Amino acid sequence: MRRDPKHDILFEPIKFGPKTTRNRFWQTTHCAGPGSERPGANAHLRGMKAEGGWGVVFTEYCSIHPESDEFPFQSARIWDDGDVRNLGYLCEVAHKHGSLAGIQLWYSGGNAICLESRECGRAPSQWVSPMYSSRAVYGYEMDDLDVKTVINMYVDAAKRAEQAGFDILEVSAGDDTLPMQFLEPRFNKRTDKYGGSFANRSRFFLELMQALKRSHGNRLAITTRFEIDTLHGPEGVEAHEDGIRLLELFRNEGVVDLVSLKIGDYAEWGEDAGASRFRKSGWMTPFIKQGKATLGSGIPVVGNGRMTSPDDMVAMIRAGVVDIIGAARPSIADPFLPTKISEGRLEDIRECIGCNICVSKYQQVGQIMCTQNATMGEEYRRGWHPERFEKTKAPGSVLVVGGGPAGMECARVLGERGYVVHLREAQPELGGHWKDVVKLPRVSEWNRVITYRQIQLDKLKSVEVHLGVGKMSAKDVLEYGADKVVLATGSHWWGNGIGPGTGPIPGADADLPHVLTPFQVTQGKAIKGKRVLVLDGEGHFLGISLAELMADQGKEVTYVCCASEVAEYGVFTLEVFNNKRMLFEKGVHCYRDHWAVSIQPGSVRLSYAYRYGADLIGPSSGSVPRRDNGGEFDVDADAVILVTSRYSDDALWRELKARKAEWAKNEIQDIFRIGDCKVPAQCNQVIWDGHRLAREFDSSHPASPLPWIRERHLWGSPTIPKLGDPRPKVEAE
Amino acid sequence: MRRDPKHDILFEPIKFGPKTTRNRFWQTTHCAGPGSERPGANAHLRGMKAEGGWGVVFTEYCSIHPESDEFPFQSARIWDDGDVRNLGYLCEVAHKHGSLAGIQLWYSGGNAICLESRECGRAPSQWVSPMYSSRAVYGYEMDDLDVKTVINMYVDAAKRAEQAGFDILEVSAGDDTLPMQFLEPRFNKRTDKYGGSFANRSRFFLELMQALKRSHGNRLAITTRFEIDTLHGPEGVEAHEDGIRLLELFRNEGVVDLVSLKIGDYAEWGEDAGASRFRKSGWMTPFIKQGKATLGSGIPVVGNGRMTSPDDMVAMIRAGVVDIIGAARPSIADPFLPTKISEGRLEDIRECIGCNICVSKYQQVGQIMCTQNATMGEEYRRGWHPERFEKTKAPGSVLVVGGGPAGMECARVLGERGYVVHLREAQPELGGHWKDVVKLPRVSEWNRVITYRQIQLDKLKSVEVHLGVGKMSAKDVLEYGADKVVLATGSHWWGNGIGPGTGPIPGADADLPHVLTPFQVTQGKAIKGKRVLVLDGEGHFLGISLAELMADQGKEVTYVCCASEVAEYGVFTLEVFNNKRMLFEKGVHCYRDHWAVSIQPGSVRLSYAYRYGADLIGPSSGSVPRRDNGGEFDVDADAVILVTSRYSDDALWRELKARKAEWAKNEIQDIFRIGDCKVPAQCNQVIWDGHRLAREFDSSHPASPLPWIRERHLWGSPTIPKLGDPRPKVEAE
Repeated sequence: MRRDPKHDILFEPIKFGPKTTRNRFWQTTHCAGPGSERPGANAHLRGMKAEGGWGVVFTEYCSIHPESDEFPFQSARIWDDGDVRNLGYLCEVAHKHGSLAGIQLWYSGGNAICLESRECGRAPSQWVSPMYSSRAVYGYEMDDLDVKTVINMYVDAAKRAEQAGFDILEVSAGDDTLPMQFLEPRFNKRTDKYGGSFANRSRFFLELMQALKRSHGNRLAITTRFEIDTLHGPEGVEAHEDGIRLLELFRNEGVVDLVSLKIGDYAEWGEDAGASRFRKSGWMTPFIKQGKATLGSGIPVVGNGRMTSPDDMVAMIRAGVVDIIGAARPSIADPFLPTKISEGRLEDIRECIGCNICVSKYQQVGQIMCTQNATMGEEYRRGWHPERFEKTKAPGSVLVVGGGPAGMECARVLGERGYVVHLREAQPELGGHWKDVVKLPRVSEWNRVITYRQIQLDKLKSVEVHLGVGKMSAKDVLEYGADKVVLATGSHWWGNGIGPGTGPIPGADADLPHVLTPFQVTQGKAIKGKRVLVLDGEGHFLGISLAELMADQGKEVTYVCCASEVAEYGVFTLEVFNNKRMLFEKGVHCYRDHWAVSIQPGSVRLSYAYRYGADLIGPSSGSVPRRDNGGEFDVDADAVILVTSRYSDDALWRELKARKAEWAKNEIQDIFRIGDCKVPAQCNQVIWDGHRLAREFDSSHPASPLPWIRERHLWGSPTIPKLGDPRPKVEAE
Repeated sequence: MRRDPKHDILFEPIKFGPKTTRNRFWQTTHCAGPGSERPGANAHLRGMKAEGGWGVVFTEYCSIHPESDEFPFQSARIWDDGDVRNLGYLCEVAHKHGSLAGIQLWYSGGNAICLESRECGRAPSQWVSPMYSSRAVYGYEMDDLDVKTVINMYVDAAKRAEQAGFDILEVSAGDDTLPMQFLEPRFNKRTDKYGGSFANRSRFFLELMQALKRSHGNRLAITTRFEIDTLHGPEGVEAHEDGIRLLELFRNEGVVDLVSLKIGDYAEWGEDAGASRFRKSGWMTPFIKQGKATLGSGIPVVGNGRMTSPDDMVAMIRAGVVDIIGAARPSIADPFLPTKISEGRLEDIRECIGCNICVSKYQQVGQIMCTQNATMGEEYRRGWHPERFEKTKAPGSVLVVGGGPAGMECARVLGERGYVVHLREAQPELGGHWKDVVKLPRVSEWNRVITYRQIQLDKLKSVEVHLGVGKMSAKDVLEYGADKVVLATGSHWWGNGIGPGTGPIPGADADLPHVLTPFQVTQGKAIKGKRVLVLDGEGHFLGISLAELMADQGKEVTYVCCASEVAEYGVFTLEVFNNKRMLFEKGVHCYRDHWAVSIQPGSVRLSYAYRYGADLIGPSSGSVPRRDNGGEFDVDADAVILVTSRYSDDALWRELKARKAEWAKNEIQDIFRIGDCKVPAQCNQVIWDGHRLAREFDSSHPASPLPWIRERHLWGSPTIPKLGDPRPKVEAE
């Protein structure tokens, strides 16, 4: 295939300051988890994007000094020579693939939680952080010496960054970092020359950029990533007010070589990393589009918007919204997105679905994962490449039973590795339960999980996909003639109300007309009456999506969850605020910390999770050793949807295991199970599970993963700093 | 001082299996944060307790295999040779001080979140974990081969543990780990020989202990830490039912050398690590006391209960409840507790206050901190010793202004280091705002923060404490005659309603009779009328304690918080469940996700945090770019208590800074500020801040902390495993 000439514009080099990027693909800063602690994982994660064609790759946000320490969250850090060494390797890998390496200089002031350093940040004024209010995070008000000291910190960090090999110094002016704290009236209550008028509120930011221009401007590109609208009205930055004013100022003062634009703030950075349930590709355009016109032709603009379509990218550039396509999540789902566009292989693009699983793992202080790209985060520690697969030395035939996400991914990777694969799906279409998921409100993009794999399977010559073949019996499998078998038969939702730590609910029976499982709903079982109660024991998207579906159909909806938060996994995917806004707007009545103790036609009896007293009054036989304070009541409900918990569809696995003696005589070498039929899990995990088995299919014990490289301190290895090392002097006199 | 002979019993050696501990002090497993990733921090943290006299020191819970990986939470791990090396150093340090080293073998089965390994656990039956339901954690049902395989994992881990140098192999049978999953009907739904009757449900646990006895019983002590009551009634383990049955079985089968007993479960391990707000010292005794009688004299029993009084310890032993005093938090607050008892220095014991700040940092995936012991977690990385202080080479005089927690701690450490210190407190008593805090319900033990420091200050010859001296002016300070000055003047609560991300509330004015700050309440300002509203922007203990105080006084109480959870920091301190039980029992009406928009006599207008729609409809000038869906309403309230946010009392600092030119002529070398008067913070942090300044008082720039040892992987250092390393074979055939 050849590249479509209309996409050529995406591959034009762009000069900014002393640097030139080879194309218009710019991997903006994004968290991933390795941070400062796992340098190999971080370097190869970013390096894979460089290899895949991103002209610029960035670190995650990078703390410039221990008094702006975001631990326990994992950031990059450029505090000492150890960081120079670790980030130096990242730069080396990026440069090897012809990309520029960028570092985002980040100082969080009064928002820094500092649970490692135990220091505290400086801020224009003193306030409790709205980000971590319950952790009592405050800063202290800066005086003129503090202003100079903090600017010295940035310059000092820039020196170490240059030493590490970075090409671009990007000042974070988003996520409520210090430049924004000075700029936004909601944070800046000063009455001196740094507060009040726009000229005063922008002074710190300007002085900071001038200092960096002076110290490094002739050698490195000086840029900022700026939140042109913080969505707070006049108390924050509004695009058409202070947003544009700041860009004019920076243009006139000549202090930036390029500007990257985004929206939102730190408390709700889900407006930047907008989940597809609430934000469609390009949603920031109405806010960022005024930036380019203000900056003129001399200062390139980077803008994000979860862009995965090259046509949309070209349109954004032609319309003068941006010069360079910024991307975080699209580069996670497909590090080779630019290469695939360049080679005209658009059908091979693994498009981001906007599920924010990547973010959700970081938010749990874990390591990055991706639904679409199972190799994300595994580049270094397991040596996985998203586009290259080691050919097996022992090719053979594999029967994969079940064409849901796990089965599709496993068949795809086995095919890439040179196995002869038959993927057999009972239903007439691929996708398994995911076909039902994508019928729910707001998640149509999630269908890309299916379509990407379907296209890839179609292209693999050694893979046959058999659809609509009905359920296979153990006999069918044993006699099929495959050398090896992989079962991917999925899971089901309990129809009896079994939930987290709770047994069946009296009256819960999905064979009854007024009780439904989630996929009975999507498959058309009639919903009785007007009042619907959704019982959510999962807390991810399913319960809340069904509640919304019911509200959209005009039902009176009650949403009940055992967790303390509605759809609590949304805390991690950054959807929680918009989830609650949506429920309020649509009039859904919510009970948190409750569970159903019985279901009758017309009503559900709820129980409060904390109905028993705090005091322990036991031991006593046969009862919880606490006082019962009541807390049970009835809620009217004509129909109940049970999103309580799942069980593996493993009947086929169990029967085959029981007949293990027959495997050899049927020339079956081994049988494996993957995905939900082993353990019900998030979609990203079942895809990973299928991918992992296929990668390690010819290892000694493929049912279990091989060891991976654990990056941690091994006792006896050197440390930086050592005790007694001096602190870098940044204090202004 | 000499030891009181009645405490001699605490220092008798105890033999268990092939090992003997030198005394009856046993540091039970507890998390701290370093886990497998920071071996130096972990070794020296545990090692400090060995040095302080704990006869036995333990790791935190230690994962035996990647399929039971608790990441992102930081556990110990004994997976590979790297772990052997890291834990080997821990054993070396423990042995150097004459203590035994114990490892807790931990396999979490269907509860393991595995966000690093991405594997999945095995369980007696398949269910969604009640611990992490929203993260969709399930296990898979074990067959007979799985039982053998998992037992092999334990034995394999035990081999590595022996190689590292451990003396004690303790099987975790608590926190919903696998032995408990088999034992408890709520987790075990099997119908084979491992499910149903007690004999069947205990079979796995027994077989596991037998295997460890066989493999290591002649060389290492084989023990278990067993939850004798899980507080779930008959669905779990009840002390007087299966609890005792299990101990009888183990005694009869001869499979344990010692048993450690506790209560609670994993979802609510706050019943084990009971915060002092809900659990007083020894609260587990009614549940654990039957254990010793069952086990007889041959099998020593360890029991916890946040014991800090040697008299209470002796009484528990004499009463036959336990043989050995187990402790986690008392050993954190004072690693030298045994030594101080042994030397008869009871007044030097730094007693745990049960605030659970230690736990709260781990729960945030951070590193341990302690309110009472500022050196906790700093033993290795900063080289701090809780009982030893480097004498300064440049002694001089120091004026400390303010005798709250920060000032007291700073004065104490300066005194220990040889400075001449005057600590001046305006009020007639030491303690600062903490004196008001300890008047609140349930927190009287927190007064130990004051009393410990008061006693130590009294003993320091070079420290003078001046009480009731009134507020010092800048002139007073300048003319005082000290070489250096430390300001610790504290903070105040806003009386105008300024909160997290929110400005003053119209009508909020603590000069009015119906509006109060927290310490106006404790200081006796009259509460108007019957209906009291507490507005909580902090989310720690203060708002909820005031709500309880009001309810106890017969008021009708409404509790309003901007956070999504009541007293949300209780999620980290493990108090959240009992907090909610208490509020329900006392009839406090709660609004979460709300804030006050105005206060009138008799009512407060509340606004829902998610009243604006999820869609972005901007940009538009002067308003939040979202639809307004209403969500404001009035609540009756005769009085309002504002727990909204604080500000530093830094007027003295500001004036002295402005008069810096006068310092030299008054022979003042430097002036510092610590604690709340720099940045309002949790009590543990302000004490640390005062301690830190005193430790580094003669460094080159004492206002800012010196660098510390950062344990992380440095690029170029070796890793274990490497790619291609084989996986330990544990599979049963």
